[in-house]
Amino acid sequence: MKAACFDKNKLTYIIKDVEKPKLIKNTDAIVKMLYTTICGTDIHIIKGDVPEVPDGCILGHEGIGIIEELGANVNGFKIGDKVIISCITTCGNCEYCNKNFQSHCVDGGWIFGHLIDGTQAEYLRVPHATNSLHKINDDNEIEKFTLISDIFPTSYEIGVLNGSIKEDDIVTIIGAGPIGLAGMMTALLKKPKKIIMIDLDKSRLDFAKSLGATDIICETGKEAIDSVMKLTDNIGCNVVIEAIGSNATFDIAQNIVAPTGRIAIVGVFGEPVKFNMQDLWIKNITLTTGLVNAYSSKNLIKMIDNGELVVDKLFSHNFNFNNFLEAFDVFKNAKDNKALKVLIKF
Amino acid sequence: MKAACFDKNKLTYIIKDVEKPKLIKNTDAIVKMLYTTICGTDIHIIKGDVPEVPDGCILGHEGIGIIEELGANVNGFKIGDKVIISCITTCGNCEYCNKNFQSHCVDGGWIFGHLIDGTQAEYLRVPHATNSLHKINDDNEIEKFTLISDIFPTSYEIGVLNGSIKEDDIVTIIGAGPIGLAGMMTALLKKPKKIIMIDLDKSRLDFAKSLGATDIICETGKEAIDSVMKLTDNIGCNVVIEAIGSNATFDIAQNIVAPTGRIAIVGVFGEPVKFNMQDLWIKNITLTTGLVNAYSSKNLIKMIDNGELVVDKLFSHNFNFNNFLEAFDVFKNAKDNKALKVLIKF
Repeated sequence: MKAACFDKNKLTYIIKDVEKPKLIKNTDAIVKMLYTTICGTDIHIIKGDVPEVPDGCILGHEGIGIIEELGANVNGFKIGDKVIISCITTCGNCEYCNKNFQSHCVDGGWIFGHLIDGTQAEYLRVPHATNSLHKINDDNEIEKFTLISDIFPTSYEIGVLNGSIKEDDIVTIIGAGPIGLAGMMTALLKKPKKIIMIDLDKSRLDFAKSLGATDIICETGKEAIDSVMKLTDNIGCNVVIEAIGSNATFDIAQNIVAPTGRIAIVGVFGEPVKFNMQDLWIKNITLTTGLVNAYSSKNLIKMIDNGELVVDKLFSHNFNFNNFLEAFDVFKNAKDNKALKVLIKF
Repeated sequence: MKAACFDKNKLTYIIKDVEKPKLIKNTDAIVKMLYTTICGTDIHIIKGDVPEVPDGCILGHEGIGIIEELGANVNGFKIGDKVIISCITTCGNCEYCNKNFQSHCVDGGWIFGHLIDGTQAEYLRVPHATNSLHKINDDNEIEKFTLISDIFPTSYEIGVLNGSIKEDDIVTIIGAGPIGLAGMMTALLKKPKKIIMIDLDKSRLDFAKSLGATDIICETGKEAIDSVMKLTDNIGCNVVIEAIGSNATFDIAQNIVAPTGRIAIVGVFGEPVKFNMQDLWIKNITLTTGLVNAYSSKNLIKMIDNGELVVDKLFSHNFNFNNFLEAFDVFKNAKDNKALKVLIKF
């Protein structure tokens, strides 16, 4: 089968013919892929930022497909079912899974395209398939469910739910990329009073505005902080979602959070940050970090099924898997290409 | 009346004869003080670390007394009632009070010995007395309730409750001073599996052990981190309470928190800290900060009344208010004097 693999020496993708995966344990499933996409994390891996990824690993942790083979101990699915592959593999039994921290599952977590072969290939082996796949009931336009593998649960759980967004809250989201926008779309369901988006890409901000942002700020540093404080009567925000992962954006977050407010970190960080504890110890704030647990996936699928949540606007480009490298190039240079999520069809 | 005042020029306490306070608003009460104590925060003020404290301000935010005068709009109290003065004044009506964030009350919060005259004097004016005093039912040994003004609610709310300590959790408390010890005493009520105390003062650690600590560590830096990791099978702690307020102790906290764990900051910080977001973004941790809200005081009083919580072991020294400066000296040089809380009688 054809697969998009990590060349660890050359730090690049390489498209290769590799062997089709087989069932290893009786809790596995084999899925024939229908759609996949590319995540910002894949860019980090290709750059060499995620050293634990082995050479030759098939990348990707998002996608949907059709069940082709089932281990004897997989329950709730049959061959031919269309399924969403969760980016988080969960045994469903360990201490962490029992507390809804499936990202730290002792026999799972984020492993696709990281520790084992991932979704950017024609076939995928899914461990702990009973708990790590979700059936798609819809028969039309199923491609939108590709966004339920990772970005919607990530932004919803780690941003909206960790930030405990409540009706009439003032919310700022730093970063209007796919994760920030998905956070905004799910935050809007909680009916905040204001939802302010900060980014340096004006076209992404305009898109955010068209989707429901009440205010957009195309600034960074002190200018961005001042603009938010002006919009909030100098009090700051009940909730700040940091969806970039840098010292500069962390600093905006810690300066615009109101007393008793919440900072939900969704960004992926590569270095320490300066944390202004001399100002914040007295402010009764809560800061959360995290990798998605995907416990909300079923609920998000329901919201899509009943029309409450419309997700597919986040696809900016369509490709065939034969043109995977072109898709990656467009996604990597997102600003020039006005790219959000690229949908890749097998 | 006699009062212990802040001399802002000389950065020292000065004992002065000052005018007795009068009712200003009809929601005020005048309390004749019976007992007070000194807090680490008072040491910070005397050092000049809290610039908003006005010159000549009577310090202190802890104590108990007898109601001598009541404004017409104070409810639930009568003259002669023995009362605990909460370190947090609460109007009971504003947005923050309604959310149990009384420390940010728009007409109160921490004001005693900070923005208005405090408890280290023979009489005290208490604004919003209806919500900011608690009646003492006991007639004997009432001095122990001095510890309910601040340190027990602080360590319980900002340490134990913010840290969501649950049965069988592994808990580490960094700092075995009065706040850390009070945190330990209330944490024990939640039945943790382990409660590890870290401090550099061996006599405080021995005392912690006698009160129920399962493990004590008289180390700092990498040694302290390694010792905690060894005690926790290299997984770390479900909850870390930071009760010091320094870069070094914050660093211990962030290195010993387990994935999905909680860091409850109780310490008062004077400078930024280096926050290892490159390690922690993926760990699904929660960090909280805060000034006490004192919403738990009534509950703590109940626990003392029914014998569940024995607090008075934290008094190491007794003084008469006539010897206030000597009491301050003993408290300031706590390590040499093996001092915890100093009880001061009027």
